Amino acid sequence: MTLDAVLDRIDSDLDAALERLFTLLRIPSISTDPAYNDACQSAADWLVADLASLGVEAEARPTPGHPMVVGHVGEGAPHLLFYGHYDVQPVDPLELWDRDPFDPAIEDSAHGKLIRGRGTADDKGQLMTFVEACRAWKAVHGTWPCKITFLFEGEEESGSPSLVPFLEANKDELSAPDLALICDTSMFNRETPAITTMLRGLLGEEVIITGADRDLHSGYYGGAAINPIRVLSRIIASLHDDTGRITVPGFYDGVHETPEAIKNQWKTLGFEARDFLGAVGLSELAGEEGRTALEQVWARPTCEVNGITGGYTGDGFKTVLPAQASAKISFRLVGEQDPFAIRESFRKMVTDMLPPDCSVEFKDHGAGPASVMSTENPAFEAARSALSDEWPNEAAFLGGGGSIPIAGHFKEILGLDSMLIGFGLDDDALHAPNEKYDLASFHKGARSWARVLAAVTR
Amino acid sequence: MTLDAVLDRIDSDLDAALERLFTLLRIPSISTDPAYNDACQSAADWLVADLASLGVEAEARPTPGHPMVVGHVGEGAPHLLFYGHYDVQPVDPLELWDRDPFDPAIEDSAHGKLIRGRGTADDKGQLMTFVEACRAWKAVHGTWPCKITFLFEGEEESGSPSLVPFLEANKDELSAPDLALICDTSMFNRETPAITTMLRGLLGEEVIITGADRDLHSGYYGGAAINPIRVLSRIIASLHDDTGRITVPGFYDGVHETPEAIKNQWKTLGFEARDFLGAVGLSELAGEEGRTALEQVWARPTCEVNGITGGYTGDGFKTVLPAQASAKISFRLVGEQDPFAIRESFRKMVTDMLPPDCSVEFKDHGAGPASVMSTENPAFEAARSALSDEWPNEAAFLGGGGSIPIAGHFKEILGLDSMLIGFGLDDDALHAPNEKYDLASFHKGARSWARVLAAVTR
Repeated sequence: MTLDAVLDRIDSDLDAALERLFTLLRIPSISTDPAYNDACQSAADWLVADLASLGVEAEARPTPGHPMVVGHVGEGAPHLLFYGHYDVQPVDPLELWDRDPFDPAIEDSAHGKLIRGRGTADDKGQLMTFVEACRAWKAVHGTWPCKITFLFEGEEESGSPSLVPFLEANKDELSAPDLALICDTSMFNRETPAITTMLRGLLGEEVIITGADRDLHSGYYGGAAINPIRVLSRIIASLHDDTGRITVPGFYDGVHETPEAIKNQWKTLGFEARDFLGAVGLSELAGEEGRTALEQVWARPTCEVNGITGGYTGDGFKTVLPAQASAKISFRLVGEQDPFAIRESFRKMVTDMLPPDCSVEFKDHGAGPASVMSTENPAFEAARSALSDEWPNEAAFLGGGGSIPIAGHFKEILGLDSMLIGFGLDDDALHAPNEKYDLASFHKGARSWARVLAAVTR
Repeated sequence: MTLDAVLDRIDSDLDAALERLFTLLRIPSISTDPAYNDACQSAADWLVADLASLGVEAEARPTPGHPMVVGHVGEGAPHLLFYGHYDVQPVDPLELWDRDPFDPAIEDSAHGKLIRGRGTADDKGQLMTFVEACRAWKAVHGTWPCKITFLFEGEEESGSPSLVPFLEANKDELSAPDLALICDTSMFNRETPAITTMLRGLLGEEVIITGADRDLHSGYYGGAAINPIRVLSRIIASLHDDTGRITVPGFYDGVHETPEAIKNQWKTLGFEARDFLGAVGLSELAGEEGRTALEQVWARPTCEVNGITGGYTGDGFKTVLPAQASAKISFRLVGEQDPFAIRESFRKMVTDMLPPDCSVEFKDHGAGPASVMSTENPAFEAARSALSDEWPNEAAFLGGGGSIPIAGHFKEILGLDSMLIGFGLDDDALHAPNEKYDLASFHKGARSWARVLAAVTR
């Protein structure tokens, strides 16, 4: 049976596959920081060259930001579009890393070997599971399983500013596929693979509050002049009520209760809030009262402060009364919440809270609605069965707390359904120091894609 | 008359005096940042050499932090101790400076010439007004007006950690003088010199709140895990009530109402809150309701946030749920408020507000009580008269919003009264970008000290 031959090929080629992955991981493609623009271009170029070596007609197409890698290859139905992203998160605080984030290595852990480094799990390691499955398929068969379009983005970690214009400008070309495969999600746990069918949306806002026209000496002006840090703190403190509900007017419009059937399915997953929180040193759910942990992270909207700064933040002390303070605030959205209506309501709420002499500037860091996948497409059940063959437990359909706006954009702009399959784990330290990807995620991930390709083209 | 000869000498030596000041200003003696330790030592050494050139027995004495410059010279009563500090504030945000902070220059302004650079007003320029007065006196008379002890500190901008131990260890030597002269305060305005007779105390605290044991992805944990920025914002928002009063339990113990007589004297100063605030782009008093501007900045205690940081604060956006957030918070104290009791009450209040899974660490950034000078010493009236001879308006006794804990330490440890005379102005941009010192402050400041020396030794 040729699937077995493909799986054997993946096994025997593992060392070489890791070498390729490490080469990609060494490129510091931090998309949000202009200092790494050249690295983003290099990562795109490397992917183009790797795809070309497999016979894919690939190119790095320029955008106003970082390039889009687009490739086409193969023949036959279904026509699949595979999406991943080659950019990574910033690495600060660098001092909390145990090794250079861009010098990846295999390490031993209690759960077996893992790959340590920025981008291992998010998303270079995941992206390469699909490429390696294709490489093995091509090596064994000499042909491709079906027509495949590759789309690798370089701005996923910085709000994807070029994505929508690019999809719209290339709509004819990119709407041809029948189904999108997106590899940027997690398994349910080490034994249980997953297809993510609900994803929260994301609204990112930066709020910059200005008081005096310069930094003041708190001795001379303290007590008389407005302090923007205090103003900002009051605004942040008012965004939630005492039960953890968000107070932005109209925020819950379009939020639906999770159906009992889904809640019951989630109960069977054996998810323990204690373990989920305990893994990161916490013990109590801090979200909306009366909601389970899975509801809080999969099915309920949130408002978080992702960063705050103002005044003197270096060593020692400086009695400054600062002119400015700012915060980066994000909202995770569910159901039919309208990110643009919420942005408007949030900005009005903040503006209404400003005391005299304060002004506010808002910066837009992206807005995407939640996605709920249509699991009626038979490819979903075929993929679920294929994944179940590779892993100890049967694959689950589940919700995802993170936002992958691409699935919404594929649906809206290209009319394309997405199937989200990924091999990340909750302890991968995404966006944090010491990011890692289990070696099993990488190896069995590639094997999983080979099985899925076989299943959906059968 | 020999005072006129001293004043003429100061006038004719002005260019050389500026050259000396510029040499001192070019040394980046930022005491709070260990990267500038060598610069602090260099500034101390330069002062020792300059004093020695005038015949002062001076030395830079080591401390666990930056050196203390101590010098003795002259004979006769009264024995004066002159205090200034040679360290300066950090310069960030550097991009807001119109020139290199450590490359001082004379610039033209609407109010005449000024000296631009870090430390011009706080405190190197002020310190050198006294040294230049002494230099001219020595040049004209060949002798000193009286016995003078110099004490120049290098840690005033970083909480003076070595000061109290140094005063205690050198109590016999430093308690010999009859009166301390401190040059680190301002005039009332460009025409009106001042002797500051009330000074607010200062308590500096850093609050570091920790939640999870690592930074989390807000998509995976947002909605379920505690966010230390939100916790910190709630704490900061709770430190004041809606009328601007501070809510720390027991905070107002020892705060006395300003006597009507003093309030009436302040009314005659023609101080306009509109001008005071308008100078920095503000229009409304933001402090305690029902208090005048001068009460708010001279006679009432405050609580300010001087800095805050947490999560991702770089360019772009990062959907991190941070493990930690911290703030630098300072309290200005008046009357008999006890900084140590307030520190304890503040820390208890913060600790009591912590939700589950959060811990707090406090860092001590200094604590000094308020000072109220005893103006019955005839030197005060003599100095007031001498200052009035130099400037257009009569000199005023007034309060000071800033904290100069040294005056309290001189009283407590050395039993020494202090007379605070300085030539700074409200628009000097202390602790801020583009710090300056009016050339008139420097020139007429030196002339003022010559007059004060003549008056108190008459």
